[in-house]
Amino acid sequence: MARIEIKRNILEANDNLALRNREFFLSNDVLAVNIMAAPGAGKTSAILKTIEMLPDCYAFAVIEGDLASRIDADVMAAKGIPVEQINTGNMCHLDANMIGAAAKKFTYGRPTVLFIENVGNLVCPSEFSLGEDLNIVIASTTEGHDKPYKYPSIYLRADAVIINKTDLAKAMEFDGEMFREGISSVRPLPPIFEISCRTGSGLEDWVTWLSGQCRLKFGPNGRQSER
Amino acid sequence: MARIEIKRNILEANDNLALRNREFFLSNDVLAVNIMAAPGAGKTSAILKTIEMLPDCYAFAVIEGDLASRIDADVMAAKGIPVEQINTGNMCHLDANMIGAAAKKFTYGRPTVLFIENVGNLVCPSEFSLGEDLNIVIASTTEGHDKPYKYPSIYLRADAVIINKTDLAKAMEFDGEMFREGISSVRPLPPIFEISCRTGSGLEDWVTWLSGQCRLKFGPNGRQSER
Repeated sequence: MARIEIKRNILEANDNLALRNREFFLSNDVLAVNIMAAPGAGKTSAILKTIEMLPDCYAFAVIEGDLASRIDADVMAAKGIPVEQINTGNMCHLDANMIGAAAKKFTYGRPTVLFIENVGNLVCPSEFSLGEDLNIVIASTTEGHDKPYKYPSIYLRADAVIINKTDLAKAMEFDGEMFREGISSVRPLPPIFEISCRTGSGLEDWVTWLSGQCRLKFGPNGRQSER
Repeated sequence: MARIEIKRNILEANDNLALRNREFFLSNDVLAVNIMAAPGAGKTSAILKTIEMLPDCYAFAVIEGDLASRIDADVMAAKGIPVEQINTGNMCHLDANMIGAAAKKFTYGRPTVLFIENVGNLVCPSEFSLGEDLNIVIASTTEGHDKPYKYPSIYLRADAVIINKTDLAKAMEFDGEMFREGISSVRPLPPIFEISCRTGSGLEDWVTWLSGQCRLKFGPNGRQSER
């Protein structure tokens, strides 16, 4: 009972900080995209490909969440993308406090898409709001099609779901129908994009959808400056 | 500060229950093998293959840990393997209390290898002792070779590491050397077994090692009853 109470307090404190992040993002013209996935589903690759393909009128920034190392941050920095690494130690998710501190380190000019690569985990990140605009869950065909049944909580929060590594779907005997049924057994189906970061297949539909979300957030200015 | 104190109390309470589990396993001739991995690394497949290949003189039992569903438990039950499903709700790991309750539901006669399939997660399970004899981490080539750098805590606890899906290693450009270096940057290398549950490759070495652990636990009786 005490444990439940403590957890509620932690989540409430986090929600208050998330609200402040949301205000910060709004006043700085930032669309914050929280990317959640199991380890190795392809979060970093998907972010890189998405940044390459989004219209030039937007600025980009990335916050990398990992227990240890700055492997992914180095990849981003090598591409010239502004990046902040958060090392959580042994914490299984990012929280609003961490994001608030990291987000303030970037310089903002024009409308910015901020990708937050959460810790690779299908459980903990689902409980902690970061003040994000969008929650994206990336599944991978190599993980198997049964994951929505086993980890429903993360799918409950998804504004869109990406299925990555579709080039391996056949070899992995990935059953897309069963995957979709797993999600729709707990909620109405969100938009689902089947992509392969390796072959580039399916990325255009995903980026078109995300561009639409950018226009919704940034309004006609963002739109007008697009080619 | 209060949060650290609370966490310490939770872990201490868990350790005390883990000690009781350990005594229970000892008095019932049970070797408890805690299997930890990211979602979709192949825990269930590896357990099934291992049970098929271990000597007939042992009895087997499986405890399945998942947030929701009993998909894996149904697979085990269909093979006639005694199985208990634990659904953790939104908890990212099994704990000693859950294992104590589940383990008591089996009937024990001869020496028993009890496989505990932990929640698919590379973070939380590393903190909670279950009273197990062995901690096995299963990595998968499809996750990438950088995971020991990003999730060192789980590798710190591994008595052995299995690399699964080696049939896809080449296609995934999995660098075994970099993977090993990631582990040895935080600890002396444990035994590492490269297997493919799909092709069967490498399973024999792993099962031979585990059989050795069984003999260590069960003594010459277990040995004599082997063919």
